[in-house]
Amino acid sequence: MNSNETVIAQTIRAVLGQEYKGGMAVQSQVSRMTANITLDFAELLMKKVEEEAKRMGMKVVTAVADAHGNPVAVRCMDDAFIGSYDVALNKTYTSIAFKMSTEELGKLSQPGGPLYGIQHTNQGRIVIFGGGVPLKMGENIIGAFGVSGGSAEQDTYLAHFATDTFRQMTGQK
Amino acid sequence: MNSNETVIAQTIRAVLGQEYKGGMAVQSQVSRMTANITLDFAELLMKKVEEEAKRMGMKVVTAVADAHGNPVAVRCMDDAFIGSYDVALNKTYTSIAFKMSTEELGKLSQPGGPLYGIQHTNQGRIVIFGGGVPLKMGENIIGAFGVSGGSAEQDTYLAHFATDTFRQMTGQK
Amino acid sequence: MNSNETVIAQTIRAVLGQEYKGGMAVQSQVSRMTANITLDFAELLMKKVEEEAKRMGMKVVTAVADAHGNPVAVRCMDDAFIGSYDVALNKTYTSIAFKMSTEELGKLSQPGGPLYGIQHTNQGRIVIFGGGVPLKMGENIIGAFGVSGGSAEQDTYLAHFATDTFRQMTGQK
Amino acid sequence: MNSNETVIAQTIRAVLGQEYKGGMAVQSQVSRMTANITLDFAELLMKKVEEEAKRMGMKVVTAVADAHGNPVAVRCMDDAFIGSYDVALNKTYTSIAFKMSTEELGKLSQPGGPLYGIQHTNQGRIVIFGGGVPLKMGENIIGAFGVSGGSAEQDTYLAHFATDTFRQMTGQK
Repeated sequence: MNSNETVIAQTIRAVLGQEYKGGMAVQSQVSRMTANITLDFAELLMKKVEEEAKRMGMKVVTAVADAHGNPVAVRCMDDAFIGSYDVALNKTYTSIAFKMSTEELGKLSQPGGPLYGIQHTNQGRIVIFGGGVPLKMGENIIGAFGVSGGSAEQDTYLAHFATDTFRQMTGQK
Repeated sequence: MNSNETVIAQTIRAVLGQEYKGGMAVQSQVSRMTANITLDFAELLMKKVEEEAKRMGMKVVTAVADAHGNPVAVRCMDDAFIGSYDVALNKTYTSIAFKMSTEELGKLSQPGGPLYGIQHTNQGRIVIFGGGVPLKMGENIIGAFGVSGGSAEQDTYLAHFATDTFRQMTGQK
Repeated sequence: MNSNETVIAQTIRAVLGQEYKGGMAVQSQVSRMTANITLDFAELLMKKVEEEAKRMGMKVVTAVADAHGNPVAVRCMDDAFIGSYDVALNKTYTSIAFKMSTEELGKLSQPGGPLYGIQHTNQGRIVIFGGGVPLKMGENIIGAFGVSGGSAEQDTYLAHFATDTFRQMTGQK
Repeated sequence: MNSNETVIAQTIRAVLGQEYKGGMAVQSQVSRMTANITLDFAELLMKKVEEEAKRMGMKVVTAVADAHGNPVAVRCMDDAFIGSYDVALNKTYTSIAFKMSTEELGKLSQPGGPLYGIQHTNQGRIVIFGGGVPLKMGENIIGAFGVSGGSAEQDTYLAHFATDTFRQMTGQK
């Protein structure tokens, strides 16, 4: 939080008697505030995942969306799969769209599963295998991270790595 | 590799102490080089597959894409399935997009499989049954070949035939 | 060209008696080589344009594509137009697709102009107002830059700024 | 015509008292025959246009569709515009779809013109500038030719060149 944000936080806290922590939603009758990950922070996170991917000998596409499913940034490591751009970006959309990881959604949308068919909704933007995760400040989702470029296992590992890294970077762990 | 390429390869190797094999990316800070199949060579390959298809009594659509997934050529044998145009072309896209054959991708994207659902990504351009293969010079993908018009088995056979033919034509076998 | 590229260029020139300039296609019967901008270099360029945008009080989306129209990176400054993501990215596609700036293409595709209607081709990916430019090493296009977020004039200015910056960064000016 | 076709032609002529000339439509109560350009002939035509393009220093995409608007073949000369694939192919579709050249349709679909807006129909497959022409045997359209890669003037010239070449090749001139 910069100093302006601190002042806003204190003021809102005083008025509403509510806690304001970075990403918390403050709701009034007229509008509600949502917190969204910044480009600068998204970049830091993406680069940390790229380093881990490089260490594993992988070339991946990473993407970050804001709390509303809109893209913040996409980065394609040199020689990554061309098909990974769409997959990484839509893993972020999916994670925001249903407020869960693409891995969890994947379990629910197998044939016979309760959400089978959800992959055909939302104009082809739903991805149902691992690699996409919501990014949370406390209980509040402030964005999502997506990665594609390896096997499903590798992508899922890197998404967990992103979650852990994000929690460390934001002092939640 | 023809003699020109061999000379380039040897020269670069000598100068930089790096391996250069046909399509190898020579990476600098600004750019990385990739090799892309030519139209002339694509045509030679497609016609050899057409001959084999004719021998089998089949009428197929063949397609070739460059190393970046863009089309190089598409040929529809007289009276081939109209629906095969899209399938053959997108088999080339898929083979480039995820750097594997559509047959391999198909195995990974069955219900319960690790990439189940990948067929809904990339705006309907992903094909998950046999008939699409990357074309490699050594380890480097310089394009992809796709064929459609028969049973999945027949298309898969013709894609393998294309791979073998390509390797022979480029002196890799 | 960095020193490695200069050495390669000189060597190939010496051996083949051909001109080699950074991204030049070295064509054989089987394949032709193309040069593509790297992620690292794309990032440097995008950040320089963001600084200029910030100086002007603007919040923009910047995008870079490789020489074949595939995305390399997209960055959305905080609070930029949501609609600018698609516009910036497709300005890169357009600049590669027709090897000219979106500004130039815009002049040709006005009502009554020779390419009127081109904006309806390529599945909605063609943008016909300023803000997209090819990035050239000598005569060779190695990628494209796109920006969106201001007026057409402002976007066009920033695209020219990107071209100039790219030329300086690559020692072409 | 192969010998089978000659026999069919003679038989139909005897029964119907009508002339049968290669591409002529023979209509009965149950079905009507249509003539469609073959892949072999399409290839011959495309290569003649490529030679002319090369002579002019151009790199173009050529496409041929059958009488029903379905693709027969597409060929992308090395280093042609990526955006030309869609344009060349859809010029063939357009020429079949409305049985006129894209140049003629372009004149009718300017703002204020009688068909203004037609470019928004047919799922983005209508092209309204020169470069696409129907291919006729007498009065019968047996396919269409499309070319893209130069200025509108150049594409239009090459389309006329294709028409003239086709007429010569089929003994219509």
